[in-house]
This record gives sequence, C-alpha cells and structure tokens, in this order.
Amino acid sequence: MARKTTQFRQLLNSGGIEFLLEAHDGMSARIVEEAGFKGIWGSGLCISAAMGVRDNNEASWTQVLEVMEFMSDATSIPILLDADTGYGNFNNVRRLVKKLEQRGVAAMCIEDKLFPKTNSFIKGETQPLADVDEFCGKIKAAKDTQADADFCVVARVEALITGQGQDEALRRADAYQRAGADAILIHSKKPTAEEILAFMGEWRDTLPVVIVPTTYFNTPPEVFAQAGISLVIWGNHLMRASITAMQLTAARINRDRSLSGVEQEIATVKEIFRLQNAQELAQAEERYLPAHGRPPL
Amino acid sequence: MARKTTQFRQLLNSGGIEFLLEAHDGMSARIVEEAGFKGIWGSGLCISAAMGVRDNNEASWTQVLEVMEFMSDATSIPILLDADTGYGNFNNVRRLVKKLEQRGVAAMCIEDKLFPKTNSFIKGETQPLADVDEFCGKIKAAKDTQADADFCVVARVEALITGQGQDEALRRADAYQRAGADAILIHSKKPTAEEILAFMGEWRDTLPVVIVPTTYFNTPPEVFAQAGISLVIWGNHLMRASITAMQLTAARINRDRSLSGVEQEIATVKEIFRLQNAQELAQAEERYLPAHGRPPL
Amino acid sequence: MARKTTQFRQLLNSGGIEFLLEAHDGMSARIVEEAGFKGIWGSGLCISAAMGVRDNNEASWTQVLEVMEFMSDATSIPILLDADTGYGNFNNVRRLVKKLEQRGVAAMCIEDKLFPKTNSFIKGETQPLADVDEFCGKIKAAKDTQADADFCVVARVEALITGQGQDEALRRADAYQRAGADAILIHSKKPTAEEILAFMGEWRDTLPVVIVPTTYFNTPPEVFAQAGISLVIWGNHLMRASITAMQLTAARINRDRSLSGVEQEIATVKEIFRLQNAQELAQAEERYLPAHGRPPL
Amino acid sequence: MARKTTQFRQLLNSGGIEFLLEAHDGMSARIVEEAGFKGIWGSGLCISAAMGVRDNNEASWTQVLEVMEFMSDATSIPILLDADTGYGNFNNVRRLVKKLEQRGVAAMCIEDKLFPKTNSFIKGETQPLADVDEFCGKIKAAKDTQADADFCVVARVEALITGQGQDEALRRADAYQRAGADAILIHSKKPTAEEILAFMGEWRDTLPVVIVPTTYFNTPPEVFAQAGISLVIWGNHLMRASITAMQLTAARINRDRSLSGVEQEIATVKEIFRLQNAQELAQAEERYLPAHGRPPL
Repeated sequence: MARKTTQFRQLLNSGGIEFLLEAHDGMSARIVEEAGFKGIWGSGLCISAAMGVRDNNEASWTQVLEVMEFMSDATSIPILLDADTGYGNFNNVRRLVKKLEQRGVAAMCIEDKLFPKTNSFIKGETQPLADVDEFCGKIKAAKDTQADADFCVVARVEALITGQGQDEALRRADAYQRAGADAILIHSKKPTAEEILAFMGEWRDTLPVVIVPTTYFNTPPEVFAQAGISLVIWGNHLMRASITAMQLTAARINRDRSLSGVEQEIATVKEIFRLQNAQELAQAEERYLPAHGRPPL
Repeated sequence: MARKTTQFRQLLNSGGIEFLLEAHDGMSARIVEEAGFKGIWGSGLCISAAMGVRDNNEASWTQVLEVMEFMSDATSIPILLDADTGYGNFNNVRRLVKKLEQRGVAAMCIEDKLFPKTNSFIKGETQPLADVDEFCGKIKAAKDTQADADFCVVARVEALITGQGQDEALRRADAYQRAGADAILIHSKKPTAEEILAFMGEWRDTLPVVIVPTTYFNTPPEVFAQAGISLVIWGNHLMRASITAMQLTAARINRDRSLSGVEQEIATVKEIFRLQNAQELAQAEERYLPAHGRPPL
Repeated sequence: MARKTTQFRQLLNSGGIEFLLEAHDGMSARIVEEAGFKGIWGSGLCISAAMGVRDNNEASWTQVLEVMEFMSDATSIPILLDADTGYGNFNNVRRLVKKLEQRGVAAMCIEDKLFPKTNSFIKGETQPLADVDEFCGKIKAAKDTQADADFCVVARVEALITGQGQDEALRRADAYQRAGADAILIHSKKPTAEEILAFMGEWRDTLPVVIVPTTYFNTPPEVFAQAGISLVIWGNHLMRASITAMQLTAARINRDRSLSGVEQEIATVKEIFRLQNAQELAQAEERYLPAHGRPPL
Repeated sequence: MARKTTQFRQLLNSGGIEFLLEAHDGMSARIVEEAGFKGIWGSGLCISAAMGVRDNNEASWTQVLEVMEFMSDATSIPILLDADTGYGNFNNVRRLVKKLEQRGVAAMCIEDKLFPKTNSFIKGETQPLADVDEFCGKIKAAKDTQADADFCVVARVEALITGQGQDEALRRADAYQRAGADAILIHSKKPTAEEILAFMGEWRDTLPVVIVPTTYFNTPPEVFAQAGISLVIWGNHLMRASITAMQLTAARINRDRSLSGVEQEIATVKEIFRLQNAQELAQAEERYLPAHGRPPL
C-alpha cells in the first residue's frame, strides 16, 4: 500500500473529483475509513468541539497533534489536518510539519487569517486576513521543512469569507501557488456555489482546488466536477450526526430511566470491541503471553 | 452551587436511586448535563474507544486525565471516573487522586483486577483478581490522599464477573468497606439482574451500592430501587449511539456523494457553536478587545 | 502554611525587597526552595532551553503548563510563571489563568510583545510592542478570571528593551496598573541599572515593581532596595550553572573514559533519591502494601 | 549520516568498547552530543528526577515519551531509552516501540522486574523479578513490532541486583537472547566489578553485553574492554553534576543577595542561545519573514 502522503497526493491529482469526510477522534476516523472514503479531514472545528472547547485555538497545538496521532494510528488512509493558521508564525509551522510527518499525517491545510483564529462561519466578514507575504513565508517554510516529498500543503484562501472579493481571492491563490502550495482551498459561506464557481471560472487550471461545501450543500457533485474541483471536503458531518444521536439518546434514557427504549437503536458493545480491534489483541495474547496463564506482571 | 464532590456524595446518599450517563469527551459530557442528568460516568471503555485504542490501558493515565479535564471544564455536574485498576499500585493511585481533584473530578472508581486491565466483557471469567489486602491498600491510600473530604472512592468488585461467586463478592465488598471505600460497585455480565439482586439480599445496608446494567438492561429501574441500589450507571450508551449515527451518516454521504440526504437529519453548525458556548466568547470580545477593532496580536 | 498565592502576594507587599530564583523543572524548583528562597521564577527561556527548543514559543503552552505542574508539585513556595505574551489573545490568557490556578501556580507575568515572542536579549530593539489597549484587555481578562483573590498578574513592560524610552515605559506601566495588574515588571538589557533607577524615580509608589537584573548584575542589592524595588528575579542562573557543570562533566568523562575523575565532584545517587523524597514512598509502602510482601499487581 | 538506529547497532557491534552518557532533557542531550559521545542513555532515574518525581513510574509513559521526543529532536546521535519494565505487559511494549520509532529513538532497554518498578539501588534484593516466559513475550513482541530492522531491544537482567546469583542471571540472559534481544544489560550494585566479570566469564560471546558501572566506577575501562563488554553506560552523571552546581549556585546567590559571586562561574546567556540554536532561527527569519518587517500575525 502506498504511503499515506502518496495516497493523498494521488487524491489531489486524480484528474477527477474526490471526497474527504470529517473525523475528530480515533473512532470517527476509523468509521470514515470503513465507510469507503479515501481520506479524512481532521476538522479544527470538530476536534475542538469534541474536546468541549471553542474553535479559537483554545486547545494547544500539541493537544490537537495528539488527536491527530490517535486518528492516524487508527486508520490506513491519509488525513488532511485543518491546521488553522499554523498556530503561530512560519517557525511554528516548521515544527508542526515535522511533528505531523512523524505521526503519519499526510497533509495540512493552513489558512490566511491571524492567530488565534475564529471559525469562518462566525463574524467572518470582520476577520482580518494575514499579510500575503507573511503567509507565503509560512508556505515556503512548510515546503522546505517536509522530509517526505509527497507531504502536501494546502493553502486556504479566506478572502471570500471576509468579503474582499474575487480579485483578492485570485491574487492570494496565485501568490500561494507561487510560494509552493500543493493545492488551494477556496472557502465560501454562501448558500449557493456561485462564488466558488466564479472563482473556478477565473482560476487557470494549474493547481488542484479544494472546497468545503458546508453552506452550499445543495449543489450537486457533478457541478463541482464540471467546474474542475479536485477535492470536496464534507467538513463537520460526523460530529453533527453524533451530536443529534447523543442528544436524542440521552433525552430518551433520562425520560425512561431505562435503557429498553434505546438498546435496539444503538451499536452493541461488541461493535465497540470490533472497532477497537480487540480481536487482534486476543490473538497477540496467544502469541506473547505464557501458556501457563497470565503471569503476575 | 455545591462543589462537584459534594454533589456526587449527595447522589450516593440521596436515599433514593440516582443515574449517571456515560461520556467520553467534552462534547458528550456537555450533552449528558444538558439532558438533565445529575452526574457523568467517565467510561474507560468509551474514552479508549473514542481515541481509537483498546480498553487495555493502551492510553496512558495522563492521556485519560486530559480527557477528564476537558470533560470537567465543559460541565458543572460531578464526574465519576472509571479509573480501571488505578493504573498501577497504591502509589499510582495516590498521584491519580491528587490530579483528579485538581481537575475538578468528583470521584473515582477502581476495580480489583490487575494492570493492564481487560474489559470485563472480554474473557471475564479468566481474568485474575487483585489480592484483597493489596487492593485495600489502594483504597486506604486514596482516602488518605484526598484533600476534599467529599471526594469519593468507589470500589468495584469483579468477583461475579470472574465467576468466583457471591461469597467472594461479599467478602471483598466487606473488606473494601472497611478499607474506607465510599461505595461498592458490584459488576455483573449476566443478561438478568439475578446475581445483583442476590448480592443486595445479602449486603447489609451500610454502604451505597452502584451498578452498571449494560447486560441486564431489561430490568425495570423500580427493581433496582426496591433492592436498595443507590446509583445506576448507564455505562456506554452515548458512544454506542454516536457510532451508529456516524456509520449511517458516513455510508449515506459516501453513497450519495452529496450532503443533501443527511443535512436535515443532523445537528446544525450553529448547534455546535452553541454547545461550544461561542456566545460567551463573542460577549467577552466586546469586553476585552479594544474598540478600535481587533489589534495586531 | 499560607496558600501559595497568599505567600506570593506577601512577597510583593512585604515593604522590603524580596528575591526569586529561576527554576526550569521539578528538580531545580526543589533546589531553589531548599536553598531558602521564598519563591520561584518559572523562566520561559530556561524551560524552553531545558526542552532543547528556543524561547520563541516553540513549545506549546500546555507543554509549559505541564512543567509548571511538576514544579508546583515538587515545592511548597510560590511560583511566578514567565508566561510570555500569554500565548495568544485575552481568551488564551483566560484559559491559562484557570489552568495555572488548578496546578497551584501562584502568579503569572505577561509581557507586552507579540505572539510568538522572541527573547528580549535577541534583537530586542526591533521587536514590536503590543497595542496598549489590547494588552490591558489581557490583564483585565486575567483578573476577572482568577478564582483565588490572591493570584497575581504581573505586567511586564518591554518599552525600555525596544528602545522606546522612559515616557513610553511609564505610560504603559500606568495603563497596566489601571487595568488591574498586581505589579509592574520593568525590564532592561543595559549593563547598569541606570534606566531602571530612572524609571523608579518617576514611578509613583502605588504598585510593586519587579526587576530582572540579568545584564546589570553588578548593581548591589541595596541600590534596588533604596530605589523601592519590591521583587528581584535572578532569572536564569540555575540553568546556566547546570550547563557549565554538565559540559565540564561530560568533557571529563569523555576524555577519561572513566568516572573516577568526577565521582567526588558530583552529587551522590542517594542525594538524587533524597531530592525525590524516596523516603516518603518507603514509609508509605509500609502502610499500604500488604505484610505478606509485595503482591502480584 | 546513518540512521540513528543504524548508528546504535554499530555501537553495539563495533568490536570494541563504546560509551553512552546519561541525559534527561533536550539540553543535557545536546551537551552529551557536543562532548563527543556517540550515544545517549535516556535514564529513567534522571528523567523522573528532573521532573521532581520518583523512579517508580510516577510519571506516565507518555510523559517520558515526550521527554524522549525533545531529546531526539535536539540531537543527531542515537538514544537508548531506559524503558523500565516497558510500562505494563507485552501490549504496552508494542505501543511503546511504535511511538519510540516515530520519535527517532534508536533503542530501548527493558528490565525483568514488575510494574510499577523501583530503582535497583533501593531495596534491590527484595524486588521480585518478572516471570521469564512473560518477559520473553515482551521481547518477542517488541521485535515483531519494530518497523526499522536496526531498532534495538536491550534486555536488562536484574538477577544479580536481587541476589539470585549467576546461574539465574545466565539462565535469564540466555532466554532473552533466544527471545530475540539485541543485547543483554547485566546490572550490578556491587562496589567492584567482580560479579560482572564473573558473568562475562560464563557468557559465551554471542550477544553484546551492556553494563552500568554506577557503583563499581573505580574499575578501569580496560578491564571492561578485556572482559568483552560492548557498551558502557555512565548512567546518571549529568544529573548529579547539575544538582551539585545548582545547589552551590542557589546557596551562593541566596547568601550574597547578589549575582556577582556566580556570574563568572556559570555559562552566559549567549551560551544558552547557542545551545538552543538561536542562530538558525535568525537566518530563517531572513528567509521566511517579509522584508517589510515583521507583519501583524
């Protein structure tokens, strides 16, 4: 099997359209892989939400890194980390790249906002953008740092989010390409794909483009494919699905003071064991524990 | 509002029957609280499952502690941590108690098995139990260490799980009470409550009893109440609910190559923001950021 | 014994001059306490140096926090953490205060520079300062967050370091006092105390002043006392002492291919055990381990 | 330059005698490398001492792992981690090997005692040894897990420490060799090398032997070489050197209330910067930060 970095690069350059689904911990990452996806989006929003903190760099970058490590260990498909602004300046980005490569994370996406960041769907239009040259320095630093030639750096353009328009978006995308980015993520919070499609109309086809259609979810995937999009990220849907399921289940159990109403609706305990790969451990115990029973440790 | 430790002690000694629901991260903990529960079970199985590792102490105790900290920070109701065997000997238990108190965790449950532990529902009957005196030393060490008089130590008896019978279970429960435990958790993996009820029939009413009816879920709660059970733990149901929801959602999105089919079924992005308490931060920005707009950091 | 926070506040307001010595891990912290100091400076420079990284926020704030926890656990005197810029904006500062209080850290010092910071002795004059209003917001946020009324926030003024002069230094110190700071740290990199003394000449005596005479080390302490300084920080001297000792010892052992030359010069292994308080554990084993010998865990 | 794992294997199999010196954090590791040593001993005793905790697995294995990561990042020579008992059973050892390889640690040493361990110089004779078969299972599991063929597993025999004699030591060393160990560490706490030399007299020369002459430090290195020892570990001497230096420095500063007496005895602040490689960052800023000065982040 190809290295995860190579797998991710192939997704970017497949010539067709590919899809990533969000995960926020080892369990959700494994579910994404089992569902047949070829890659995982390590969502900053959902990782922070799982922790119970906000999408404003309240968790430290090493806490996010540890989640990445669990996710990477639990799966064999590539992960693209939503690394916010890179958690500081170019030097912080350099450290991050080294650490991600060690943990087997295939790629990272950095966005042209300021640390600490705010989620793009919260007061997006008032958020200041990074200086273009400074952000290009981060991209260059990341590319110069990576040890694996296939590690990918995705540069996320927030100009449409902040209402600065197509020209600014294109100017930035162009600069980030020249700085060495492996793909451009053009982000939009509109309810339709209009401004994304406008961007694609202007963007010469020299670097793969990635989108996150959270708000324009109604656009058929064929439209994205025809527009030349390389990669579509379903950005937060396993977290959202789990919230609803947990809320309903908690409410039901609280009301009933009993499990009877939920037992048939939810995965079995054995299914947890299967997802944890308990079977492999049972086999390993046969191999590595003495025949005379489990010894005193 | 009472300290979390005091809240938990009141749950144990309410005179009636009380309920905890499992959580495995900050988000699920907040959902348990919002659903109206008075306390949270920090499940070792589900915390490891969320990480994507096994319930065999594959995660280190400080990694579990960090999850506890996020869960505690995200909620105002008490958490009872499923602390396995205490992650070592009495000395490891002492460190654990100090660290849990610092993080605002109200109580911990330790079980009379060996480190590293195996989930009770996996080959339970072949698992060796801890030496009674050694386990009592852990309980004593925990009680001598705690700074807050209301911090609770729940001693979990695994004798029924390992098939050693009622006499052994009662002998151990009695020893653990004498060692200073604040409650006894009597665990069973039978499909009915029979052996739990038999235990209650013998147990003189001197210390609160806690149960985890994962396998005997069909027993009506009134039966537990009549038997004198103080606290019922719904041990793994939010994890199980979220697994099912995530599996269905991932499958649907993968099949459709679109979000249209799931968008109406899952929580909104705004609901994530609400659960993260994004509103409080927006208000704080008014208070603490300069009026002349967001400054260069 | 008074709470650590109260101890620190008393140091600030003793009416005389007090001294802190730098530590960078649990061992050095314990040595500071044993030497008779009444408080510890958790130096950002030395903590990063011990890790082998640079004083540019290469370590994450939670990695620094963990060092603080070990230092606090190992000692009974207060620690003032050199918290750089607070590791982000006012919101990061709020989280930091909560976490420091949980770990028993008595006080923190934040400086009016930008994240990620650079050590003041490296190209100090070219470093930009924080916006005054934004920095005041951090101070207010910290003070509003603390649960213990005696937790102290020291505001570090870098205006002299960056060559912006006394007026700017005084303007900032005044603003930080009004924002709620418990003390002002006025920093200088001059070889004499001249600019510090000039600052003290202008500073009305309404808030304790803290200094770090790393470069103006030749100034006699009486001069500081007469000038009205409340607290003197010896900022990096245990790290510097240990570097020299380790370099000499490593060189000697490498040359000799033997320990004979160093054995008499260095602490014994028993001294390590004493500093680790191994004795307490031996006693606890008597109390908590069964008489029938160490059991199978 | 050869991979660190390969470097370490070459040390074991050089045909002559080689030396490792202890380090306990990134700084001390860098000093070991600069002094000319070809490898580093990541001492469990000294790492715990630096943290301010005891050598009884009070720190979690992931906390030790993080120290290893800083040490590995700070150096280009191989590190042999003193991994105590492997922090649990064979399964914990498997996880450890994966994580060490990711962090660039070249080798690990595991000892045949029980978790949580006690330092061999504390009540050594009363410490129980691991079951031989169980310990061999750990070695096999480690060897089956490693991805890099040159990662080394050193099996530490504690039979002489516990007073069980040469026959038991040889029996265990032989079993560990058959299980796949890459070297045997034979440990002794005698003031002379007598029992080590007796062991070497019996040990057929089929696997490299490692020693830690902390107590028999007076034995000339030629004696070790002639006896066929492959690797000598100076196990705790940088920690011991730094303790003495810090104690003297702290006492002097406290007495003098001034730095004047110590300033000439200790490394300069510039030397800290040099050891942190501040120079590289200054150069990188030229490359990656915009010419128009440091931008607003």
